[in-house]
Amino acid sequence: MNCILLPKNTQTISDKQQLTHIKEVLKSKVGDSLTIGEIGGNLGKATIAEINDNEVQLSDVTLDKKPPAKLGLTVILALPRPKVLRRLIMDMTSLGVNKLIIVNSYRTQKSYWQSPLLERIDEFVFEGLQQAIDTVPPVIEFKKRFKPFVEDEFPALLAANKGDKEQSDAVIAHPYASQPWKAYIDALKHDKETMPKILCVGAEGGWIDYEVDLLCKHGCTAVSLGERILRTETVVSVLLAHWLEV
Amino acid sequence: MNCILLPKNTQTISDKQQLTHIKEVLKSKVGDSLTIGEIGGNLGKATIAEINDNEVQLSDVTLDKKPPAKLGLTVILALPRPKVLRRLIMDMTSLGVNKLIIVNSYRTQKSYWQSPLLERIDEFVFEGLQQAIDTVPPVIEFKKRFKPFVEDEFPALLAANKGDKEQSDAVIAHPYASQPWKAYIDALKHDKETMPKILCVGAEGGWIDYEVDLLCKHGCTAVSLGERILRTETVVSVLLAHWLEV
Repeated sequence: MNCILLPKNTQTISDKQQLTHIKEVLKSKVGDSLTIGEIGGNLGKATIAEINDNEVQLSDVTLDKKPPAKLGLTVILALPRPKVLRRLIMDMTSLGVNKLIIVNSYRTQKSYWQSPLLERIDEFVFEGLQQAIDTVPPVIEFKKRFKPFVEDEFPALLAANKGDKEQSDAVIAHPYASQPWKAYIDALKHDKETMPKILCVGAEGGWIDYEVDLLCKHGCTAVSLGERILRTETVVSVLLAHWLEV
Repeated sequence: MNCILLPKNTQTISDKQQLTHIKEVLKSKVGDSLTIGEIGGNLGKATIAEINDNEVQLSDVTLDKKPPAKLGLTVILALPRPKVLRRLIMDMTSLGVNKLIIVNSYRTQKSYWQSPLLERIDEFVFEGLQQAIDTVPPVIEFKKRFKPFVEDEFPALLAANKGDKEQSDAVIAHPYASQPWKAYIDALKHDKETMPKILCVGAEGGWIDYEVDLLCKHGCTAVSLGERILRTETVVSVLLAHWLEV
């Protein structure tokens, strides 16, 4: 937790995790300064005016810093095991993904859609924002039917993100694609303007051929990360690294 | 587990996790083919000759494929929380780090060095190799004293990895460094030959100024990943992405 996120016009912290962080990790005292952010708004500082068992009262709240820029990227993710999803949502939020569309896939087990963790997505987003010192949550959507999503919604999504260049604006990571990721990215000169605006990532076990083919038929370019097969979480960080303008 | 790693000249699988994977995940039968590797040797295929409660017997073992190339990189990592270390070791192994030197740092709690997980490093390496379809474990060393390591051993390590160019061959990731990572990497043209050979990564909370200064005094260049503060695991994957030749 590298900042404390608060709703608009709030000067009282009563969230348990935030209180624990302030008291036990930061070991803050009255008069100390905290890095805070307004959910969906600016970042800034506040002074601790009072600490008691259930609350921390703030004073001198100043919210004068814009949150960091997002990546300009929509990620389409096949729903993975719920435990993995938690870390993925935290990481994609921390890394600055604009929009996350979680879709069904052949290798997504039906039970994953029933997981109680799916009800806790907002919590994971919140963790990711407080980790990265950001205030703006990514948009998150769920699409339980893969084929109708790709056939009926994906083309409009791609068109909305299409620049005026010939390069595909959507890539799909697939270990068995013939085009290597590095060659693809090198050709784009690692420039944010030319980077694809949509990235599709499979869950454990990856996409099946039918899914790759359907996405490619609708405008995706399949790229391979090479011989090494990586965990979904690792793949996501490895890929998003190339969108980070740092 | 994307391959089954076995000691040299072994045609019998008796490791419990491997057996569970073969029986319950792959649901293999007699006559099926398995992707296998010889620890430290080649990758290849084998046929399942027999399956019983405690063993799987292999036949037609062919080991004719070299393991994937390593990154050409030594990572110096401040010892993080043991739970995080497990995933970090798996990931760095999967991504192809050649050598991992785990050092003490100001923000490493003393208790981390007593964790029983430190005795299980080989297991995590094994998991990482079987994930990535690799056979060659990274070299792993522990240095419990930071200052003597940096002053007495680091210069020789750097000299051994020094090319004939002026660019520093060691970088330290530090959120408060003034040089941005992307500018640094763009200047190296994303070319494996010119990439640094040593990368230093802090644990949760990062390096303290004294540690950054000491490493820089001995030849490291400090680079910043920007405004977003990422989890150690995420930082490692984001950085190693730039060494992956894929």
